[in-house]
Amino acid sequence: MTVPFRTRFILIEPSHAGNVGAAARAIKTMGFEELVLVRPRWANVLRRQETIERASGANDVLNRARIVETLDEALDGMTHLCATAMTPRDFGPPTRAPREHFAQFVAAAPTEESQGIAFLFGSERYGMKNEDVYRAHVCLSIPTHPRFGSLNLAAALQVIAYEWRQALSARFGGFEIAPATAPSVLADAPQIAGLLTHLEQALVAVDFLDPAAPKKLMPRLNALFNRAQLTQEEVHILRGVAKAMLETAARAKG
Amino acid sequence: MTVPFRTRFILIEPSHAGNVGAAARAIKTMGFEELVLVRPRWANVLRRQETIERASGANDVLNRARIVETLDEALDGMTHLCATAMTPRDFGPPTRAPREHFAQFVAAAPTEESQGIAFLFGSERYGMKNEDVYRAHVCLSIPTHPRFGSLNLAAALQVIAYEWRQALSARFGGFEIAPATAPSVLADAPQIAGLLTHLEQALVAVDFLDPAAPKKLMPRLNALFNRAQLTQEEVHILRGVAKAMLETAARAKG
Repeated sequence: MTVPFRTRFILIEPSHAGNVGAAARAIKTMGFEELVLVRPRWANVLRRQETIERASGANDVLNRARIVETLDEALDGMTHLCATAMTPRDFGPPTRAPREHFAQFVAAAPTEESQGIAFLFGSERYGMKNEDVYRAHVCLSIPTHPRFGSLNLAAALQVIAYEWRQALSARFGGFEIAPATAPSVLADAPQIAGLLTHLEQALVAVDFLDPAAPKKLMPRLNALFNRAQLTQEEVHILRGVAKAMLETAARAKG
Repeated sequence: MTVPFRTRFILIEPSHAGNVGAAARAIKTMGFEELVLVRPRWANVLRRQETIERASGANDVLNRARIVETLDEALDGMTHLCATAMTPRDFGPPTRAPREHFAQFVAAAPTEESQGIAFLFGSERYGMKNEDVYRAHVCLSIPTHPRFGSLNLAAALQVIAYEWRQALSARFGGFEIAPATAPSVLADAPQIAGLLTHLEQALVAVDFLDPAAPKKLMPRLNALFNRAQLTQEEVHILRGVAKAMLETAARAKG
């Protein structure tokens, strides 16, 4: 299914080249592409060494990034503006946590028409200006420590991009995580019982278990194996151990 | 309720001082405290200028951070180890997405006993060694673009710390987002009707609305106001506008 959202990240007056590069990297890791800079401190920020280093391969995002003079120029095609601001404003859009807002926004979005969603990030030093916040439909606030809420610009963008991707994935399907190793097959109860019998013989053979006074050793091992949810392969390994114990004990007697 | 988890972030052989500082900042924003470095490239990394700059005020995390020689020394008191590794291993712990894993882990955790959860991050260049991954109970994989999955170390830590905090908050209560402005009171239907009547008179007075051929203007405005969910304050403002239109129209006639 095509995702009916065009996503754009807008940095307003970013001052650190490293943050611009890190933002490009964060955007790309989450499968987005569009970056627009409004009045960056460095006119050549997209080509600065620090930017390229911190982008760490997200060169296509940097190459396609636009630099504009006004926020308006950055907003063509955008229909839903999300400000990211630490400080609540006297009035302006409602403040919401990203996860909650994205879930509702994506669930409510009609799939037959495309929307443009823009994430606005203020400058590292001053945050967003009131007049820019007022234009937004929502002010996203990442829940943070009440006395230390200041995320780095690129870190905040990474969290927002991640949450937005998660919300899109929940409705439209998303990135799979790296495939795990081949799924293991759990041992069934008879296989566990067989293992326990085999182990019991081995433990007797090496004189650890006294059959006349077994105490609770075997039930304890049973509980351990149940809790660990042994795989068939692990049962195989442990039975190999039991076999070796029995053989060694036989040699010791002989 | 006391959260029955002690949380620790462990960076194995970090090579960039900036990442150590950014990690400290990320840890603090999410309300955590413990940072341990295993064999960092720079012995004095906790006191380097770049570290302190990027920590941006999270000095207490840096001051309390420990530097150790082996992963074992970093793991005292830790009972659940989460590796973060891009590359799936031939065997080793199951690979899971952080959100899914944390939700299940926190839901299943008994509250009467404290657990130590450690997040292990490999070096920027080489990731985690197999032998370190094998020790972990789970390998966390942040869902990313299939062909560009490499998050910056501190960015990955920020996402993991954020997700872990969100999971803790869901069960034990968490950080509130910055309080919004005073909640506004929605206008009720009679107030909207009163506004529409007032506006209709004003629109007639300024010769925009022809009462003989009103078309669908008022129903359209009604639909717009309903969709916008006007507050009582906004109704007040719009009625002020209507009043001014009527007064101006009266002066224009006089």
